[in-house]
Amino acid sequence: MAVVVMKFGGTSVGDLERIRNVAQHVRREVDAGNKCAVVVSAMSGETNRLVDFTRDASALHDAREYDAVVSAGEQVTSGLLAIVLQSMGIAARSWQGWQIPIVTNDAHGSARIEDIDGTELRRRMDEDDQVAVIAGFQGLGPDNRITTLGRGGSDTSAVAIAAAVKADRCDIYTDVDGVYTTDPRMVPKAKRMERISYEEMLEMASLGAKVLQTRSVELAMVKGVRLLVRSSFDAPDSVPPASVNANEFTGTLVCDEDEIVEKQIVSGITYAKDEAKVTLVKVADSPGVAASIFGPLADANINVDMIVQSVSDDGQSTDMTFTVPGTDLERALAKLDDCKGDIDYQDVRGSTDVVKVSVIGIGMRSHAGVAASMFKALAEKGINLQAISTSEIKISVLIDSAYTELAVRTLHSLYGLDAA
Amino acid sequence: MAVVVMKFGGTSVGDLERIRNVAQHVRREVDAGNKCAVVVSAMSGETNRLVDFTRDASALHDAREYDAVVSAGEQVTSGLLAIVLQSMGIAARSWQGWQIPIVTNDAHGSARIEDIDGTELRRRMDEDDQVAVIAGFQGLGPDNRITTLGRGGSDTSAVAIAAAVKADRCDIYTDVDGVYTTDPRMVPKAKRMERISYEEMLEMASLGAKVLQTRSVELAMVKGVRLLVRSSFDAPDSVPPASVNANEFTGTLVCDEDEIVEKQIVSGITYAKDEAKVTLVKVADSPGVAASIFGPLADANINVDMIVQSVSDDGQSTDMTFTVPGTDLERALAKLDDCKGDIDYQDVRGSTDVVKVSVIGIGMRSHAGVAASMFKALAEKGINLQAISTSEIKISVLIDSAYTELAVRTLHSLYGLDAA
Repeated sequence: MAVVVMKFGGTSVGDLERIRNVAQHVRREVDAGNKCAVVVSAMSGETNRLVDFTRDASALHDAREYDAVVSAGEQVTSGLLAIVLQSMGIAARSWQGWQIPIVTNDAHGSARIEDIDGTELRRRMDEDDQVAVIAGFQGLGPDNRITTLGRGGSDTSAVAIAAAVKADRCDIYTDVDGVYTTDPRMVPKAKRMERISYEEMLEMASLGAKVLQTRSVELAMVKGVRLLVRSSFDAPDSVPPASVNANEFTGTLVCDEDEIVEKQIVSGITYAKDEAKVTLVKVADSPGVAASIFGPLADANINVDMIVQSVSDDGQSTDMTFTVPGTDLERALAKLDDCKGDIDYQDVRGSTDVVKVSVIGIGMRSHAGVAASMFKALAEKGINLQAISTSEIKISVLIDSAYTELAVRTLHSLYGLDAA
Repeated sequence: MAVVVMKFGGTSVGDLERIRNVAQHVRREVDAGNKCAVVVSAMSGETNRLVDFTRDASALHDAREYDAVVSAGEQVTSGLLAIVLQSMGIAARSWQGWQIPIVTNDAHGSARIEDIDGTELRRRMDEDDQVAVIAGFQGLGPDNRITTLGRGGSDTSAVAIAAAVKADRCDIYTDVDGVYTTDPRMVPKAKRMERISYEEMLEMASLGAKVLQTRSVELAMVKGVRLLVRSSFDAPDSVPPASVNANEFTGTLVCDEDEIVEKQIVSGITYAKDEAKVTLVKVADSPGVAASIFGPLADANINVDMIVQSVSDDGQSTDMTFTVPGTDLERALAKLDDCKGDIDYQDVRGSTDVVKVSVIGIGMRSHAGVAASMFKALAEKGINLQAISTSEIKISVLIDSAYTELAVRTLHSLYGLDAA
């Protein structure tokens, strides 16, 4: 017997046929004697439809009302899956965020889960053999109003529920069968990883791999929830039921570093196209200039990532290059224009024609020379690096987006990730 | 200053354009200094879409899950209207049934409202000038689960909220501009009534006029809530703001009999086509035979309405005719077939080719001869009466449905209801 949380995203519950398929996955687990909680997203397209309604209603809408509207999507799916499970003879009931409750802070639209008391859910799982079908993405704020967790929030719901019911594992069912060494649509030789550490997955998710929401990985790491990324489109009876025995799954297990015996120097390559580059030309090179640039951007809630300050020729001025999310470029340029007097620069240039390519691996910690080999390989292909940023377990470079595929394929081969 | 509850049905909130129109109606009331609570239905078509989902999920679905799914429609509308009102500078917030809470019994799918504490709503209306936008049709059951009130339940929500906040009036906005003496699509000479008593409206609603849900009228009568039926499609600025002054409205006021000075003998004519007639031929005419027929039908939750027992020729047997809702005819016939041995009849016949035409008026109480004049007028047109039922303020006859229009027009003229 294992206690398992299963999470199904929007495409996995896109219509009733697929919801029935999800129910078969649940049945497989129940038949194997497992206790299940199932976290569901809105049917695909539904959240967009509801979000569009709120935008049409008013461009500047109250986030509390946005949450009331948008959370309706998950509500519908949870009820429908409970009905389908019951029709198969499986005891099940739906739970809305406010019914459990999934207590969050009051940051409507991107709330953070603060507390879940899993006692009652677990009691029903254990004593009543009842499957809990939980509306993902939503919670209850301090003012008794519905909150939502932000896009992809159902992953976080699932991890939080898994921690609350002390699940043995949290299975994230998605439209791919695991986490790949890089995007298989771009690199056919990409391989599914058997295991990946929380830290690496966190970097992968932050740096462009869309398979898991970053925050859910963070939470899983903190709470020690073992995540299994697997496909909901596999025939339900073709995959083994959940088990605490780690040898019996298909998919990718996201787990503690200690559980990974053979550590790769580089585990994966990601690319993120939703970056924009901003260059301030001939900024007065004086103390406090960085604060005068990045302070106003931070105030405007614009996330600045890679920063490069080029050496000035004259000792008087410098060029400052940094990246912001592509969707924030216009706002960033407007903000910088507002502050032109304070910052004192000659010109500002923005471009979305860039991509951030990253190599990620916990093995880097103990291996020097990864950056050097990366830069060399890219230089040999004539790829110019516009910015670089590193952490203990990743190296990111900003390049011309036209070179994305070349760069990713080159690095994938370089670090021995190509499938045989 | 008046405290007004405004209710808008599905077609009135059918899309964002119409929701904006609703907001203009609310603005008119707010501008006039009134305190408003607004009860909204799901956008038209939305409830059907959700109901279809639950049916597709399983023909025999758990009513609690049905309610979780279907209540999502009103949730969306309430949030959207709150957003639109806010964008117009009007303080507003949405309320779900469980947030107020609108406490109901546990009859999921057709729950009855048991209690609403209107204190907090009223406080916000009075102190914060905040418009309460309330999701109609839904409540909170004793087990902390979402309930729904059944089709048309938003009318009942509105009346219950009006009672809870001690509103001066409850305005039911609909796609017609009031209650008519009969269906104006059938009788162009039908007139809008200025006023109608609760009792008459109750009969009108039960007997085919679809403008208000029967239960909402019942509740309004018990709680003394004055209902105004008016059109949401009128330009919002073409109708006067709500007022306790009864001379300033357009629409039909449903109110206490005492407020109606000039009482008509007959106020309105209705017809209901969703009836079916069942005839049991040559039933053994013995004591207890009625119980043996209607007992099993009641057990099967089939509502029997008009009952006619014809005098038997032989003193041994009788023909028994009665009506059931058209949608229940097949079930009723199957049930009677099951019980053939117990009831002892020769044959059973069912027909949906009938219509129930009713004349309604509180004036009947003090005027004899209404039935006689009605039967005479119909006989003169060659219309055969298949069954008759009466109450203190209405007379209903069952006739061949081909004669519907002729009967309704004849009676409408007979009782002086034709517009000049």
